[in-house]
Amino acid sequence: MDLDRLTQKSSEWLRGTGPESDVVVSTRIRLARNFAEFPFTTRIEEAAKAEVAARACECFEDLAIPAKLSYINVSTLDELDRQFLVERQLISRELSEGAGARGVAISNDEDIAIMVNEEDHLRVQVLRSGLTLDDCWKSMDEIDDAIEEQVAFAFHDQYGYLTACPTNVGTGIRVSVMMHLPALVQTREIQKVFHALQKINLAVRGLYGEGSQAMGDFYQISNQYTLGLSETQVINRVREVVPMILKYERRAREQMIEEKRQELHDHISRAYGVLSSAQTISSEETMHLLSSVRLGVNLGLIEDVSIPILNELFIQTQPAHLQKLKQKALNSAERNIARASLLRRRIAEAAE
Amino acid sequence: MDLDRLTQKSSEWLRGTGPESDVVVSTRIRLARNFAEFPFTTRIEEAAKAEVAARACECFEDLAIPAKLSYINVSTLDELDRQFLVERQLISRELSEGAGARGVAISNDEDIAIMVNEEDHLRVQVLRSGLTLDDCWKSMDEIDDAIEEQVAFAFHDQYGYLTACPTNVGTGIRVSVMMHLPALVQTREIQKVFHALQKINLAVRGLYGEGSQAMGDFYQISNQYTLGLSETQVINRVREVVPMILKYERRAREQMIEEKRQELHDHISRAYGVLSSAQTISSEETMHLLSSVRLGVNLGLIEDVSIPILNELFIQTQPAHLQKLKQKALNSAERNIARASLLRRRIAEAAE
Repeated sequence: MDLDRLTQKSSEWLRGTGPESDVVVSTRIRLARNFAEFPFTTRIEEAAKAEVAARACECFEDLAIPAKLSYINVSTLDELDRQFLVERQLISRELSEGAGARGVAISNDEDIAIMVNEEDHLRVQVLRSGLTLDDCWKSMDEIDDAIEEQVAFAFHDQYGYLTACPTNVGTGIRVSVMMHLPALVQTREIQKVFHALQKINLAVRGLYGEGSQAMGDFYQISNQYTLGLSETQVINRVREVVPMILKYERRAREQMIEEKRQELHDHISRAYGVLSSAQTISSEETMHLLSSVRLGVNLGLIEDVSIPILNELFIQTQPAHLQKLKQKALNSAERNIARASLLRRRIAEAAE
Repeated sequence: MDLDRLTQKSSEWLRGTGPESDVVVSTRIRLARNFAEFPFTTRIEEAAKAEVAARACECFEDLAIPAKLSYINVSTLDELDRQFLVERQLISRELSEGAGARGVAISNDEDIAIMVNEEDHLRVQVLRSGLTLDDCWKSMDEIDDAIEEQVAFAFHDQYGYLTACPTNVGTGIRVSVMMHLPALVQTREIQKVFHALQKINLAVRGLYGEGSQAMGDFYQISNQYTLGLSETQVINRVREVVPMILKYERRAREQMIEEKRQELHDHISRAYGVLSSAQTISSEETMHLLSSVRLGVNLGLIEDVSIPILNELFIQTQPAHLQKLKQKALNSAERNIARASLLRRRIAEAAE
């Protein structure tokens, strides 16, 4: 797969459609799977690791699923290309920064991404726009079955699927819902929500998964462990909690509109004004302002730009994306200029 | 004269043309004159003050000058209308807040304004766009002669024209040049310039004359006293110093462009962005941002708006102008909203 081609297009999960898309950006399900005939990647030798990658590639070529997968050999990519894939949510930081034979198979719409030789031999991801747990699971179930037709997975009758990390043992499933929660952040109610989620063993993470900061008021809500629960139970646990968070966020938005509409409108409009006129802007400020504008569009206070364009700008204004777009390495100051230029152009085009 | 008609139009001095108009907004000359047959306004009785006003009105009607003057009876105006005239630089705060018979005769272009019963019986003002000392003086000289054809001024062979305040005795002339000095303000060199001016007995004041704060980086440079100097000497003293200040300001601008073009461009563009998008904005922030954008236009960094429009916005975004425009009394919060709305509309129209 040609990475440059990805630069020109937008991922399916940025479409900004799907149920509850005013708050829920995307739904992601991933499965952790390991080949029965190889040691886990934490204990494998380099030659065997290459065999795992070769075996995976072979299997992806004839996979009985509608989507066509393209394999990218991550071990031969330079740092910029690896970071580019991280920014697009197609690979994890761990895979990017790992060593040895590793890669990722990606569908054309980028809704399917299967990492090879991350923490587990396979990490299968299905990522879609909006709150689409059932669609994601249906697609994931098909992929899982299709792979298992060709390879034997490490499986234990009592424990279920075996994985490198004990928290994934059982079904190997992680269900994440990425939510945009600007009103809960602004009203400072977000901490209460997080404490409630932690009590029921759901995790809250930033835009780029484990250990990442919440940027642009985006939060991933996901299950903490899988052992002892079926896939459906894990999915349902997330399914049950999301409407609550949705309700809190929407109530906080309504409250803001009721209590300080003018101030909010001003704040959001100025964010739009700065994004459409700045000549140099940091990634952090961009995230912050785009988050305000995204809230503004969802509240009907901004009409000149759409959610899909904002979703894309969150991704395209990141360092590797900017450099891929400009087709050259840029230092921080140069990126700030390129970022401002991209924002001005895209926002002006959208307003036309 | 119908004040509402003034709301719809723009004063000549805001045209933004004339020599050196990148820095010099306007040139103003005023003469202080008193009728020989009446006591000064500081010592006059109310009935005699009314006679002064009547006598002045009579004289204005047949004045042998090309411009037609319209007389406004300031004593019958409400506070809003009086403030409106102050904001347009047609009357002083002193006249606005004074008591008893008083008024102002205004030419259609607003380039001539003759206050009656301010500190002196007559305060004749000629106000034009750009650095136009000779034009202003020519016009003023004509008006002064034309008035003196009809009335006898208080005059002393040794001291010259007599005025209520000793600093005006002699010629009664004050020559002011309003300059936009954002680069000298930003590079903090402005204080040095002011000290130099004070040493040669030139005064520096804000937008609204004596005691007013410098808003939007506008400064009026004017002579301190007139006794012992001819009109031409006073004019020449200002004429000699303005090119020096012009040079300093332009050098400061060039230096800013050379040393931190990107930062300056960003600062100016963001100011434009906020002005074109804010939903509520204070007068102070407006002045500050308009000043940045005005500098940007003069440096060729902003192209979507013109100097005359910016000059007008400085005036039209002020409290009384906003209320005249909306045709109702507005409190501070309402004015901030009306101001933002006017700015968005005017800037969007200009960018079309």
